[in-house]
Amino acid sequence: MVTNKACIVRLSRYKNALSRLKSLGFVKVFSDNLADAADVTPSQVRKDFSIFGVTGNRRGGYVLDELIERLNRILGKNVTQNVVIVGAGRIGSALMKYKGFEKENIKVLAVFDSEPAKQDPKADTPILPIEQLEGFIRKHHIKIGIIAVPDIAATEVMSIMNNAGIKGVLNFASIRLKGGEETVINNVNLVSELENVIYFVNASEKSKKGGK
Amino acid sequence: MVTNKACIVRLSRYKNALSRLKSLGFVKVFSDNLADAADVTPSQVRKDFSIFGVTGNRRGGYVLDELIERLNRILGKNVTQNVVIVGAGRIGSALMKYKGFEKENIKVLAVFDSEPAKQDPKADTPILPIEQLEGFIRKHHIKIGIIAVPDIAATEVMSIMNNAGIKGVLNFASIRLKGGEETVINNVNLVSELENVIYFVNASEKSKKGGK
Repeated sequence: MVTNKACIVRLSRYKNALSRLKSLGFVKVFSDNLADAADVTPSQVRKDFSIFGVTGNRRGGYVLDELIERLNRILGKNVTQNVVIVGAGRIGSALMKYKGFEKENIKVLAVFDSEPAKQDPKADTPILPIEQLEGFIRKHHIKIGIIAVPDIAATEVMSIMNNAGIKGVLNFASIRLKGGEETVINNVNLVSELENVIYFVNASEKSKKGGK
Repeated sequence: MVTNKACIVRLSRYKNALSRLKSLGFVKVFSDNLADAADVTPSQVRKDFSIFGVTGNRRGGYVLDELIERLNRILGKNVTQNVVIVGAGRIGSALMKYKGFEKENIKVLAVFDSEPAKQDPKADTPILPIEQLEGFIRKHHIKIGIIAVPDIAATEVMSIMNNAGIKGVLNFASIRLKGGEETVINNVNLVSELENVIYFVNASEKSKKGGK
C-alpha cells in the first residue's frame, strides 16, 4: 500500500472537514467539498481515497456517515488509543487535558515527570514519577507516547520508551529523536513552526521594499 | 530566491543543532555534523546553505559562530519578533510562557481572550479582552499572531487579524484558515500529528501480523 505522511495528514483533514460538514447537516459530500475544506484539489481527494479503496457513487458523491466511518477505521480511530505523556511542564500539561484528543478517541492514561512537585498520582489523569514509566507502558501495553520534556532529557526518555515497547512517538523537544528501526517518530517543533511564519513574512516585506 | 517551507524548516533545525554543538564546545562544524543532527544528507545541508550564499572553507567546514549569526539573520532572529496570542485556553497559556520562544528572541506582547475570567491585564504578559485585539495590533505594529481559540471562533479572529495588518499566523485551531493574499498561514494540528503516528504504528503492526 502506497502511503506517506502527507497522505495521512490529508486523511486527517478530510475527517475533520467531514465532522464539520456533518454538524452543518450535510448527508452527502463531493470531493469538491472536501477539497475546499482541506485546501487541496478535488482530484487529490479522489486519488487519496482510491488508495484505500474508497469510491464514491457514479456522480462522485460519498455518503457522509459511511465516509467518516471508513476514515476512522483507516486512521485507527474505531478503537480508543491509549497514550502516555512524559513531561508535565507547560506543553505536557496543556496536552494532558487537550479536548481535541478526547474528541478523537485518544485517551491520555498517565503523565510522567521527574519533579516530585509536579506529580499527582491521584488526579483523574495521574501524574507519576518518571521511574514508573517503563513498568506502566509494559503493564498497559501502551504503543504511543508523547515526549514533552526539556531537550536535555529527551534522548533518555526516548530510550526508556523504546525498551518498554513504545512503537510511536510524538516529540515536542527541539532535538530530533531517533528511535529503533520500527519506531515511528513525529517531531513537532513549535519554535520552528513559528520561525517559519516569521521568515516568510520578513521575506515578503523585504521583497516589497526592494520593489519600490 | 528559491525557498520553500521545507527548506526554512531545515534552516531552523540546523540553527538548533548549531546551538547544541556550540554548548558542547564546538568551534567549527562540517556539513556532516549538521546532516546528522538534522536528519538529512550532507549534500542537502550544503545545497540549503548555497541558496543563501553561505559557503564553507575549502575543506567544507564552517565557523560555528559565523554560521549561527548568518542563520539568525536569514531567519529574522537578529531582532526581537513581537507576537500576540489569541486564546488563553490550555494551548494558548502554554505558549504564552513557552521558554522556547523567549530563547529564540520571540516575545509574546499580549494574549487576548473573550472570557473575562481569563483576562488579567496586569500580568507580566497581559491577558486582554478580545475587543482590544485590533487596536493593540495596530498600535504596536504587530505582524505575527498565534491563534489558539476553539474552531468556532478561529475564522473571526483571523478576520480581525487581517484587518489590523497581521501578516503571518500560526494557527492551532483544527480548521484550515485562509487569510488575505499576502498573509502567511501555518496550520499546526496537534491531533493530526498524533493521528499520524497512530496510523503508521497500526499499519506496521498489521503488516507484521499479515506476514506471520
